[in-house]
Amino acid sequence: MTRDPNDRPDRELPSGEEALIAAFWAPLAAACPGAYGLKDDCATIAVPPGQELVVTTDALIAGVHFIPEDDPTSVAWKALAVNVSDLVAKGATPLAYVMNVGLPSLDRAWLEAFSGGLRVAQQAFGCQLVGGDTDRTPGPLSISITAFGTVPSGRMIRRSTAQPGDYVYVTGTIGDAALGLALLQDPQTGTRCGLDEAASTYLAGRLSRPVPPLALAPVVRACASAAMDISDGLMKDFDRLCRASGVAGRIEAGRVPLSEAARAILACGGASLTDLMSGGEDYEVLATIAPERAPELERLAAAAGTRTTRIGDITRGSPGAVAVSASGEAITFVKSGWDHFSQP
Amino acid sequence: MTRDPNDRPDRELPSGEEALIAAFWAPLAAACPGAYGLKDDCATIAVPPGQELVVTTDALIAGVHFIPEDDPTSVAWKALAVNVSDLVAKGATPLAYVMNVGLPSLDRAWLEAFSGGLRVAQQAFGCQLVGGDTDRTPGPLSISITAFGTVPSGRMIRRSTAQPGDYVYVTGTIGDAALGLALLQDPQTGTRCGLDEAASTYLAGRLSRPVPPLALAPVVRACASAAMDISDGLMKDFDRLCRASGVAGRIEAGRVPLSEAARAILACGGASLTDLMSGGEDYEVLATIAPERAPELERLAAAAGTRTTRIGDITRGSPGAVAVSASGEAITFVKSGWDHFSQP
Repeated sequence: MTRDPNDRPDRELPSGEEALIAAFWAPLAAACPGAYGLKDDCATIAVPPGQELVVTTDALIAGVHFIPEDDPTSVAWKALAVNVSDLVAKGATPLAYVMNVGLPSLDRAWLEAFSGGLRVAQQAFGCQLVGGDTDRTPGPLSISITAFGTVPSGRMIRRSTAQPGDYVYVTGTIGDAALGLALLQDPQTGTRCGLDEAASTYLAGRLSRPVPPLALAPVVRACASAAMDISDGLMKDFDRLCRASGVAGRIEAGRVPLSEAARAILACGGASLTDLMSGGEDYEVLATIAPERAPELERLAAAAGTRTTRIGDITRGSPGAVAVSASGEAITFVKSGWDHFSQP
Repeated sequence: MTRDPNDRPDRELPSGEEALIAAFWAPLAAACPGAYGLKDDCATIAVPPGQELVVTTDALIAGVHFIPEDDPTSVAWKALAVNVSDLVAKGATPLAYVMNVGLPSLDRAWLEAFSGGLRVAQQAFGCQLVGGDTDRTPGPLSISITAFGTVPSGRMIRRSTAQPGDYVYVTGTIGDAALGLALLQDPQTGTRCGLDEAASTYLAGRLSRPVPPLALAPVVRACASAAMDISDGLMKDFDRLCRASGVAGRIEAGRVPLSEAARAILACGGASLTDLMSGGEDYEVLATIAPERAPELERLAAAAGTRTTRIGDITRGSPGAVAVSASGEAITFVKSGWDHFSQP
């Protein structure tokens, strides 16, 4: 036990955990009566009649999911976005979240920027902070968020209910975040491929500030037979969806939607299409849809301003996913996506 | 970013995060349909009509809240117990929880013992794992749990609603966990005070395996005007309750319930009563009750097998808490309790 009462905070700060909560977290909870101003031990969440709560939890750890020097407003955005991404892909409407923060030091400027970033993110995503726990840690900065959304009872869209014959759709573009990370690790790639600053900034932003397709949640709920978010790589997550559903899935690689910046890097050989299809952190929605619902999906998604692209099909067959080239040949992946615990 | 695909797990383990979830976490979620076997991205929680969800979150970090070498079954118990303690003190019936685990290494024996400990704890507390997130961390082992309970809508018992004239009750005995920690830090105290092994084991267990008074939740809901759990020290938490309620509170130190082991250590000068009243981690319930409801509280608590003791009163006056001796003199506290972020 290292509960050292002489442990000194690093900078001038409001004294005590309650003052810290009041200064940085309570303003984020002000609009939600069930948060009780973060002054009580628990929050209450009233779920409207006929609805049920959808719950997800994801953590960001400095040195694993972000760089300690990253802009705190982006870290805050991403910590909430990765959770909202799960809700949206399940057809749920974001409602609230609780947050555990482990702080290696107390830095007023960092806390102000981080809580400011959360304010912007929760406004964008339509949810409120309702509770949390702030601890000192001898380890890296860590942020665990548990997010809540609502769906009409029984209407959460699962990953295990895809049907043979379904079409496969994704939102947005694939692989941008992986390229953002690649540029961070080797900035020369951008120069080599003639990327301008706007394109580099775009890719970096896709890594640091993913924007889950919020407007798609009701469309997913209305149309999709199965859905999940793409966080560990398109191929890995599609494979998971197919195995969970007990179906075979096929992606036509040429149909995978790419940004202009990604096309430029592909064209100059700075990355391969399989890199993009197995790169993590897209935070887009992968959905399967019965063919007769597809026109409705496309119409509703367009009306919501969300880009959707049909990239493949679900068939009977051995459960799992494959990608094929334009000529129909299977494409081999060295690594289909990211796994924290994979054995190399 | 340190997403090193060559990062090698330390020991033989099921390959991949999904296999890890299937081996260690999914069995804990088997009885809850809304957990979908932990095979989907989100869980669903159906809140019965007329009820609302009560939510709390608390983290345990190795080196801060427990020793890395601590028995994993006790760590698991405590990680859930500290959350259930908050629910019980609010009058909520535990229902479910989600868990974020940050693992510095992969140790099958540790994971087996930890998940086994969670199984025992969730059976004891009547709640189920419904979701989670497992990450590798370069820092200390950390466990963040977000726990859910239910109350009839609007019936969560708050800390801010104590009334002048109310009686003040606590469950169980106070200061045992602080003494358990003191014995851990200086085992000679026990020898000096003539503690037998059973007494030492009892105090150590009060620190490592707190047992929130589960049976009291409906009693709190039925009788208490305000309540909270005591986690940071009786005086500090009572002071918080009084300030939140805008009332003055007085504890008669001589009434504070103590275990036999605590009495023995007090008698030999191994600790002071103020040490016990400001020691953290009691995980008992502190409740205020209108005098006319007190007999009902005592009857229901006795029927539930929960020890409750009237220790003081709420009065009008300057918001805050004091403790007085048998002769009515105010007792001075150097430190009223534990705060992660207090300025010394």
